[in-house]
Amino acid sequence: MMHSMLQDGGQELDRIRGEILATYLGDGATNHLDGKNLPSQAEVIDLINRILRLMFPGFYDGDDNIHRGNMKSWCGYLLDRVHQGLTKQVARSLCIGCIGGEMQKTIVRAERVSLDFLSNLPRVRRLLIKDIKAAYVGDPAAASIEEVILAYPSIQAIALYRLAHELYLRDVPLIPRLISEYAHMRFGIDIHPGAAIGESVFVDHGTGVVIGETCEIGNNVKIYQMVTLGALSFNKDAEGRLIKGRMIKRHPTIEDDVVLYAGCTILGGDTNIGQGSIIGGNVWVTNSVPANTVITFDAEKAEYRRFVRREWSFA
Amino acid sequence: MMHSMLQDGGQELDRIRGEILATYLGDGATNHLDGKNLPSQAEVIDLINRILRLMFPGFYDGDDNIHRGNMKSWCGYLLDRVHQGLTKQVARSLCIGCIGGEMQKTIVRAERVSLDFLSNLPRVRRLLIKDIKAAYVGDPAAASIEEVILAYPSIQAIALYRLAHELYLRDVPLIPRLISEYAHMRFGIDIHPGAAIGESVFVDHGTGVVIGETCEIGNNVKIYQMVTLGALSFNKDAEGRLIKGRMIKRHPTIEDDVVLYAGCTILGGDTNIGQGSIIGGNVWVTNSVPANTVITFDAEKAEYRRFVRREWSFA
Amino acid sequence: MMHSMLQDGGQELDRIRGEILATYLGDGATNHLDGKNLPSQAEVIDLINRILRLMFPGFYDGDDNIHRGNMKSWCGYLLDRVHQGLTKQVARSLCIGCIGGEMQKTIVRAERVSLDFLSNLPRVRRLLIKDIKAAYVGDPAAASIEEVILAYPSIQAIALYRLAHELYLRDVPLIPRLISEYAHMRFGIDIHPGAAIGESVFVDHGTGVVIGETCEIGNNVKIYQMVTLGALSFNKDAEGRLIKGRMIKRHPTIEDDVVLYAGCTILGGDTNIGQGSIIGGNVWVTNSVPANTVITFDAEKAEYRRFVRREWSFA
Repeated sequence: MMHSMLQDGGQELDRIRGEILATYLGDGATNHLDGKNLPSQAEVIDLINRILRLMFPGFYDGDDNIHRGNMKSWCGYLLDRVHQGLTKQVARSLCIGCIGGEMQKTIVRAERVSLDFLSNLPRVRRLLIKDIKAAYVGDPAAASIEEVILAYPSIQAIALYRLAHELYLRDVPLIPRLISEYAHMRFGIDIHPGAAIGESVFVDHGTGVVIGETCEIGNNVKIYQMVTLGALSFNKDAEGRLIKGRMIKRHPTIEDDVVLYAGCTILGGDTNIGQGSIIGGNVWVTNSVPANTVITFDAEKAEYRRFVRREWSFA
Repeated sequence: MMHSMLQDGGQELDRIRGEILATYLGDGATNHLDGKNLPSQAEVIDLINRILRLMFPGFYDGDDNIHRGNMKSWCGYLLDRVHQGLTKQVARSLCIGCIGGEMQKTIVRAERVSLDFLSNLPRVRRLLIKDIKAAYVGDPAAASIEEVILAYPSIQAIALYRLAHELYLRDVPLIPRLISEYAHMRFGIDIHPGAAIGESVFVDHGTGVVIGETCEIGNNVKIYQMVTLGALSFNKDAEGRLIKGRMIKRHPTIEDDVVLYAGCTILGGDTNIGQGSIIGGNVWVTNSVPANTVITFDAEKAEYRRFVRREWSFA
Repeated sequence: MMHSMLQDGGQELDRIRGEILATYLGDGATNHLDGKNLPSQAEVIDLINRILRLMFPGFYDGDDNIHRGNMKSWCGYLLDRVHQGLTKQVARSLCIGCIGGEMQKTIVRAERVSLDFLSNLPRVRRLLIKDIKAAYVGDPAAASIEEVILAYPSIQAIALYRLAHELYLRDVPLIPRLISEYAHMRFGIDIHPGAAIGESVFVDHGTGVVIGETCEIGNNVKIYQMVTLGALSFNKDAEGRLIKGRMIKRHPTIEDDVVLYAGCTILGGDTNIGQGSIIGGNVWVTNSVPANTVITFDAEKAEYRRFVRREWSFA
């Protein structure tokens, strides 16, 4: 009997335990008993932080003695550690629900996926350098490149997105979303790993930003806090269930050089924001907008204004 | 004298210490000297995470070897640990400012509260299973139940709310708000423990959501990011001070099957959103809305549209 | 050769390492090799949390045995630890890119800055006591001063801002922004260290709040979640590059006793919100507003309303 100061407390605790256990057995779908193959959230976060150290060498704590003399061994050690850990986690995620011998086959497939992912790190790093420059060039408050890397949520959130996206493209279940939710928790920036995002993107401040699974975003796009790029309606199958995944484009397309100001909401898979357009703060868009258009809200007249962009800008 | 490289640095540090100490003694209200009974934030967070492990067995790290053979001891150990720790923290929170002998009486009351709370865990788990299904069924991007549990802020935020609410209903001071602020910090979702929320609720993305103390929310309600369910005005007493707590209903009522899109704001204790209504993104509501009504904003015409819901939906 | 289960895996890993290393050497601006003087993010966060313990004695874990008998040594120990650690981090941040002998000179300057900063802690603590009271008096849901200190993001976010601002005023690079981004990550509240904020300020809920570098905010101002105080346009120099830093006032001025409701957006360096005015939820302001004005949005008529404040209020 469990311990309690109260006379009937021990019995009560025993009873509660019994009732909790009964809820485990009643509904398999929300347990993970007897199944050892779920990827570990903590290990995935640890691995992704090691990859961030590879992406921004010397910027993180404990890495401040990296120099040309030791960087080869430092990089090799980290890469090997990530390769081993990622292979294990990818195998688990490919094998949720596997039994016995299947896991052995899966681990070889997982290592190929892992190596293929890692071989894209140099390309991802070159993309991140462009993102860093976009933030530095685009924000008057950014005093140095160091500040952008260490104190701008945009860079880390986009780095986590770009890494998660590479795993998403390789059909790895669960891990891409563990990474994107880690970014969401830290920065309030919720970019689905399925979104396709171009080069030199800057998400300023970023809290509340939501970018959906089937979004397409071009180059040199600037996105402020609380922007939603969402779905306008959900398609259902013949039985009335939502159609899942990336089969249907539910989210908008944002072309090159667009600026999306704080709190604007752009919805729908057919909605296209043309190159160079500027969508003002809190503006609500559910239809396509041609190139070089400015949409803003005139609070004096309580009406939307729409005009051709010239040398106009606001932020 | 404290140490410094500067000639007068040590004296300066001594002086600063004296000035800081003087601010402690001057204003008792913002110290917690000599009072040992404040609940520990770190311990409360540790306990609530143990309870989350009981709610979602096998999903968290270190718990991946739970199977039918060992689950009884695993559950019993966790439950006992939570029972002991919670009793202690509840006693502290009931006894802020207590002296000597009072603490002994309080600890017995605290154990009763703690047992009563724990006896509701099976019911809370059954509620959470419904919340998980609501998220899975309601989001095309949700690929599996595992993904919903591990990578949707909604589930953990609502779990923390449901647990905090049970303690709030038992008049435990401070701890419910420590839990809700922990959820707010992690997920950006700020649900006051006093709110009354029905079954199968889904808070998608969730960043910026604020749900006030006296809100009432029905079943099958879907809430997107940045929705505010707030107060419209604050009542004051004869001396002009705000009337505190749950005595006055300050926040709206949301009936069953309502959808609240990103950024909509619904204010006031008399405001009622009728069953099946849909409030569009960024819409601002301070009066009641009848059942099966759609309110949305027509950006082309810069005007609000209000019509009866048919098979209409957007997201 | 690195290890892999796959036949060509080891070679592939060696190749990837080589490619990653090549990206390090190609672009000096985004590395921090050979430069040991970057302040440590983890150490800055540790120091600022120690300072928060000094600001709110007895409220944080491990500090619950502070009493009149030991508080002098407790305070002295913490202060000495902060003084040493801060001096080192300030020296690093003043000396990014320094070589050899320069660091010695810098450390003396860093200690002066550090002492000067610490000598303002008693004043900052007095300001924070006013902020705590503003939150307690201003929110019907606030049950006690203890709750405000432990469970209101406003207090810690403003504390971190006030501390970062003191370092910003002393021209310390990078560290103020490491502190403000730490607050942003934890609370979703992004206050630039350069902003000038008066007394008794309350940021309720706070998720999504952005307050820009050159904002000026008076006393007794109340700010709700998702309020943006931003820039309206960016000035460029003759070569078309953004003019950096605080030289140009880009962000608005908010006078005493103003209330800014959830989601309102106020932009521009020339925009002044007059004393006692109330800006309604989701309202968009890019021009100055006279004192005692209420601006709100009438959702029924889809138009903005602007009138003189009487005893009117909403929240």
